[in-house]
Amino acid sequence: MTFRAPIEDLTFSFLHIAGGERLIETGAWPDLDGDLAAAVIEAAGQTADEVLAALNRTGDQTGARCDGKDVTPAPGFKNAYDRFIEGGWMGLAASTEWGGQGLPKALEQACFETFHAANMAFGLCPMLSLAAIEALETVGSEAQKGVYLPKLVSGEWTGAMVLTEPQAGTDLGQIRTTAEPIGDGRYRLTGQKIFITWGDHDMTPNIVHMVLARLPDAPPGPKGISLFLAPKYLLNSDGSLGERNAFHPVSVEHKLGIHASPTCVMAYEGAEAELVGEPNKGLAHMFVMMNAARLAVGVEGVAIAERALQGAVAYAEDRRQGRSAWSGEADAPILDHPDVRRMLAVGRARIEAARGICLSCAVAGDLARSGPEAERPRWAARQALLTPVAKAWSTDMGVEVASQALQVHGGMGFIEETGAAQHYRDARIAPIYEGTNGVQALDLIGRKLAGDGGEALRDLLAEARADLTGWADPALFAALDAVETGAAWLLEAQGTDRQADALAGAVPFLNLMGDALGGWMLARGVRAAERLGEQVERRRALYEVYARNLLDAAPGRLGAVRQGEAALRSLDRTALAR
Amino acid sequence: MTFRAPIEDLTFSFLHIAGGERLIETGAWPDLDGDLAAAVIEAAGQTADEVLAALNRTGDQTGARCDGKDVTPAPGFKNAYDRFIEGGWMGLAASTEWGGQGLPKALEQACFETFHAANMAFGLCPMLSLAAIEALETVGSEAQKGVYLPKLVSGEWTGAMVLTEPQAGTDLGQIRTTAEPIGDGRYRLTGQKIFITWGDHDMTPNIVHMVLARLPDAPPGPKGISLFLAPKYLLNSDGSLGERNAFHPVSVEHKLGIHASPTCVMAYEGAEAELVGEPNKGLAHMFVMMNAARLAVGVEGVAIAERALQGAVAYAEDRRQGRSAWSGEADAPILDHPDVRRMLAVGRARIEAARGICLSCAVAGDLARSGPEAERPRWAARQALLTPVAKAWSTDMGVEVASQALQVHGGMGFIEETGAAQHYRDARIAPIYEGTNGVQALDLIGRKLAGDGGEALRDLLAEARADLTGWADPALFAALDAVETGAAWLLEAQGTDRQADALAGAVPFLNLMGDALGGWMLARGVRAAERLGEQVERRRALYEVYARNLLDAAPGRLGAVRQGEAALRSLDRTALAR
Repeated sequence: MTFRAPIEDLTFSFLHIAGGERLIETGAWPDLDGDLAAAVIEAAGQTADEVLAALNRTGDQTGARCDGKDVTPAPGFKNAYDRFIEGGWMGLAASTEWGGQGLPKALEQACFETFHAANMAFGLCPMLSLAAIEALETVGSEAQKGVYLPKLVSGEWTGAMVLTEPQAGTDLGQIRTTAEPIGDGRYRLTGQKIFITWGDHDMTPNIVHMVLARLPDAPPGPKGISLFLAPKYLLNSDGSLGERNAFHPVSVEHKLGIHASPTCVMAYEGAEAELVGEPNKGLAHMFVMMNAARLAVGVEGVAIAERALQGAVAYAEDRRQGRSAWSGEADAPILDHPDVRRMLAVGRARIEAARGICLSCAVAGDLARSGPEAERPRWAARQALLTPVAKAWSTDMGVEVASQALQVHGGMGFIEETGAAQHYRDARIAPIYEGTNGVQALDLIGRKLAGDGGEALRDLLAEARADLTGWADPALFAALDAVETGAAWLLEAQGTDRQADALAGAVPFLNLMGDALGGWMLARGVRAAERLGEQVERRRALYEVYARNLLDAAPGRLGAVRQGEAALRSLDRTALAR
Repeated sequence: MTFRAPIEDLTFSFLHIAGGERLIETGAWPDLDGDLAAAVIEAAGQTADEVLAALNRTGDQTGARCDGKDVTPAPGFKNAYDRFIEGGWMGLAASTEWGGQGLPKALEQACFETFHAANMAFGLCPMLSLAAIEALETVGSEAQKGVYLPKLVSGEWTGAMVLTEPQAGTDLGQIRTTAEPIGDGRYRLTGQKIFITWGDHDMTPNIVHMVLARLPDAPPGPKGISLFLAPKYLLNSDGSLGERNAFHPVSVEHKLGIHASPTCVMAYEGAEAELVGEPNKGLAHMFVMMNAARLAVGVEGVAIAERALQGAVAYAEDRRQGRSAWSGEADAPILDHPDVRRMLAVGRARIEAARGICLSCAVAGDLARSGPEAERPRWAARQALLTPVAKAWSTDMGVEVASQALQVHGGMGFIEETGAAQHYRDARIAPIYEGTNGVQALDLIGRKLAGDGGEALRDLLAEARADLTGWADPALFAALDAVETGAAWLLEAQGTDRQADALAGAVPFLNLMGDALGGWMLARGVRAAERLGEQVERRRALYEVYARNLLDAAPGRLGAVRQGEAALRSLDRTALAR
């Protein structure tokens, strides 16, 4: 149950695998150097360990409550939130103009990994504030920025993303919530929303809801959705809090996991709101938030796997059964059984791979925003390409590593008090929200691959191969080649109107791409370790474990990538369940 | 939430894939023919649908309770149990000598699949009675058989397996519970046991505990364990129930899933017992029960996947989002999105594969017991070889299909009321109990593979290849070849004192073997469909989906089989979590 933020691995991954060194070299963050990055990650880890980790279990047991009017967070969460924002964590990567520290988003995500690992339910609250900050920074008016960003960046208020309705999940074009203009640039929102994470709580005096709704004259479907901002408490002209706005939580869902994160049904009953960005461009604006949130969810996947693995390693060291295959010791720690070691080592290797992919994606975003002008389009394309892989591959990994970590506990893993079961339950949401992993794969092969004719992927593969010059293990090159082969097949299918064929191979392709890129990340770790003369044996072993357990099987995934739609089409409802 | 037992698929799999036809041909079961098998499975399905399925959700919500003295099952379970045993299901495969119907165990397991699918927590109770029956039939004295078997076979009493102690899980040699002789062939058991499934309840007037304990003069370790029988209520000389025996449940565990199955901490405080079988041979005797239970747990894996998949198919038919890639229909059922179809179709194909493997294992057991005399050793070896694969591969599949089924539900899958989350929670125990899947893999490569120098596996592969003459898809043969290659490597490693190398590859080898055998099962399904002229297109499509998604990747698993121990050894505690 104890947790220690993996500050050494996070710092190494940020600086030497994901490209933190490249961020430093650009000079775009004048204060940033390796020591600062290490110090920031260490301080984040301290907050995670000391403020958040202890509330993870009690939050799971007690959960957040709703009386039909207000949500009460789990005990201790309000105090933890106060201590959290005192540390300035909400503003780490926000512009100094709004009170932030202007550091790279990649460093912020490295820090947030520790928060999610310590307490995934808690971490969702600041995660959604970050998404609201990103949306307002990108499409908010100057007035909106001036009023709301300082409050969100300080953490004095939190933000919420208000998208889903019962009939409008993946297909947000079906949204029915209405926005009636009432003059003076103001609107009244009416409708019911579901799955609103941290949609209500009393940890802060105000909550900023970013709401998708329809204007009266809006065209039907996705091109008629607009983005609105509705604060829980309206603001007086002097900026002080006025009366409560006309929306409230109806209930919180009874969920499999993340019990301390209130997932609200919200009723908007003529709630006062202002338009954010342009009318009928709400979906595009919301995707700004979504993309930041998608990477953040990928980081959650890494985080929950890290926490679960630490628990399993500790258990495997304490629990003694049978004779060690290595030392011959009787009544040995189960950690000394090669199969237990294999489960843990594969988990560690996959965590390192996913962490590298997620932080690489964040670094690409930082370079796209603040890197050398000429390189920005290239990094924007890289960020766009990596986002669905970072989200989906990392969160599937999170579920699988949490499951293996539970397995390492044997029968004790199935008992709730051990804690392993909570990670298995909590982890399961991450492949679903912010766009299911299936939707991520469609985004990958559509907008990200076919959208530029494969250009961003070619650039990525070229960089990987150049980076890997002299690498001895052919399995990594074979995996990268398989990505190229799969991509060519998917581009061909999409270019010749065999859309269903491409869609059938989307998730297998994403998985293949994640496997291959993960191998590259681990190889980068080996190279960095050799260069630095530290943890060389460990990094080589992690690569080796990853290569034999994942890379060797990666080219075989091409069968699934190219399976085509025919067999699937014939397996209709009757054929699937008879 | 609705469930319909898959009686058509079960009958097809039993008869045409797993070898039910072969059982009929032997004539060892004179009444058995295809119609009888179909009728029995249909009747089982009716019991599952009408008696057990509706209690699955309420049982999860209420759970079994313990007041420190007695266990109270979830509401409705006692009545359901009465109806269950009225159907004669406990005695389906038991000897007619004890009131059973003497049908094949494979047919019994086909029926039990429907019970486990309808209500996994309930199904555990009769499953453990079956294991007690098997142990008594094999090693009980004539007197013990005469007293206990009629009661267990009728279901009037239930059985429990009492093995685990806190320090003795996988390593049962560590058991400390003592058995003091008190003369007259009787003993007093003293000790504490944990993880005792259905160790107490009030559904029947008596419960037969099969308990592992140590005699006073027993050698230390696994060779000093004996098997005892201790009834909850002692028997008077006329066979009527006497006073309560000196053992009781202390508490039930708070578990991730199967809440309605009471997992008891049991205290034995001088409980009166009789020895079963020979002194100090308890572990060997208990393995008779364990092996039957291991196959039964594999069947549970199939069952929970079936139930979860049915829920996901129903949801995917009802839930409408987006445009169909096939029909172009707007607001189409998500079942018409190729990626959703892929998740469901892969699940269905894996269920069919696992069902085939489990029932093939059961058929081998039937032939080993009752088939032509000369063939019995061959089938006994086949049963032994298939048991760990049936248990581990099917239960891992159960977890993964339950997880994918939850994923198909999107956000609703994470809400407990949908029911998908329960399957995800319930499924997770099956890879753990009756020997973790890691232990199954060690059994496979040790006792089952190295134990006979690979003979049983060679026989299996030869039969598969002969059976597949003319099969067009090379992927299946490549998978079988990979099994052969992997087995040769493992035999070589074990033969040259590279035990740790072999242990590192055990689980990957078991997974590879399951993938390959599953492909054979699906191919057998195609052949049978073609022969019978029914569901030909469906069976071909299931094979195709399985082949592209699993078989094509199977040879790539050899990397993990042959990974060796070196990298794992170097990833010690510090390297795994720093």
